[in-house]
Amino acid sequence: MGRTSDGKERILAAAQRLIELRGYSALGVAEICKAAGVPKGSFYYFFDSKETLALAVLDEEWHAQHRTWDAILGGGDGPLQRLRRLFEATEAAQRAGQHSCGTVAGCLFGNLTLELSNRTELIRTRLQEIFDAQVAMVEGVVDEACDRGDATVADSNEAARAVVAQLEGQLLFAKLYNDTSRLEAMWSNCLALLGARGPRRIAATSS
Amino acid sequence: MGRTSDGKERILAAAQRLIELRGYSALGVAEICKAAGVPKGSFYYFFDSKETLALAVLDEEWHAQHRTWDAILGGGDGPLQRLRRLFEATEAAQRAGQHSCGTVAGCLFGNLTLELSNRTELIRTRLQEIFDAQVAMVEGVVDEACDRGDATVADSNEAARAVVAQLEGQLLFAKLYNDTSRLEAMWSNCLALLGARGPRRIAATSS
Repeated sequence: MGRTSDGKERILAAAQRLIELRGYSALGVAEICKAAGVPKGSFYYFFDSKETLALAVLDEEWHAQHRTWDAILGGGDGPLQRLRRLFEATEAAQRAGQHSCGTVAGCLFGNLTLELSNRTELIRTRLQEIFDAQVAMVEGVVDEACDRGDATVADSNEAARAVVAQLEGQLLFAKLYNDTSRLEAMWSNCLALLGARGPRRIAATSS
Repeated sequence: MGRTSDGKERILAAAQRLIELRGYSALGVAEICKAAGVPKGSFYYFFDSKETLALAVLDEEWHAQHRTWDAILGGGDGPLQRLRRLFEATEAAQRAGQHSCGTVAGCLFGNLTLELSNRTELIRTRLQEIFDAQVAMVEGVVDEACDRGDATVADSNEAARAVVAQLEGQLLFAKLYNDTSRLEAMWSNCLALLGARGPRRIAATSS
């Protein structure tokens, strides 16, 4: 069963799935290894500790999400249209997750921030880097939108943080109510936060 | 040490403090009892399980917070001024918590939503009731603001949810960066979400 060849990837995949469903603290190494189909002894061959594994899970998840965000936000349409597609992709991913495992998992980064950031500085720092990067990506789009006159904000970094905070807050509700339709409000809230409210103009160009 | 007279209250207070600092799953009954200064055996005299304790902690916290929200949002000033005071009180409470224990604890309800809502239906349901009540309280104020022409929203329930989602998202950032100044943006974001942006009028009446 290739315990050294693909054992690490299997542990990572199992941990990502289990952490998403049940959080970090409730999981034991034995359970992760069982789900990954690898002997428990091999865990410490790949990872120093459960914390090291959590960091690796965060890196894997961010690597994939960054690629998606980059493709969407760096696309060819108008800036607000790209932002809208980011929300649609987020909603679609949550819906697919709910379809496959029965519950809305929410955002792994938000989940681990609230569960762990006060308990381990390594994980706190990594999560800060991830959210800083998310905000910077959104900020670039907000700047573009402002340059085109599609948005009006006093401070584009602050506005980007408000958009990411709104995303996290609505993902929290989607998880709490196990209802992805909660996410539909994100777009109009985002427009309001970016001073792009009332723009039938924007609504028209984005459809 | 009055193990039956005040043991329950001491367990509740210790659990609230520990859950706020470290989450729910990472805690054991023995640790909670030690922090409360009660013998472990007495825990099950008061609580059936750790889950029952968590529900009691949520009820205690919401009882106190509901009283605060009610006093602020039911006050005598204009609706947006009251909403602003709610944000200021939230920020002050987080700052006081950080001052006393070194870290921003964030929102107990948000923390347990992301850690636990997919693992126990009892806790999920209780948290839904709490957030429903928060949104309803904010919605009442949004309705008042709209009636006075201070805010313009398409759907006051949706707008109230956006405001609470923004609050939770910014509390997540405050916890992640251990920085209460992150919460200062809440008010201007709230104005934007309520279509009360650009109202030097509102800013003037609220100062």
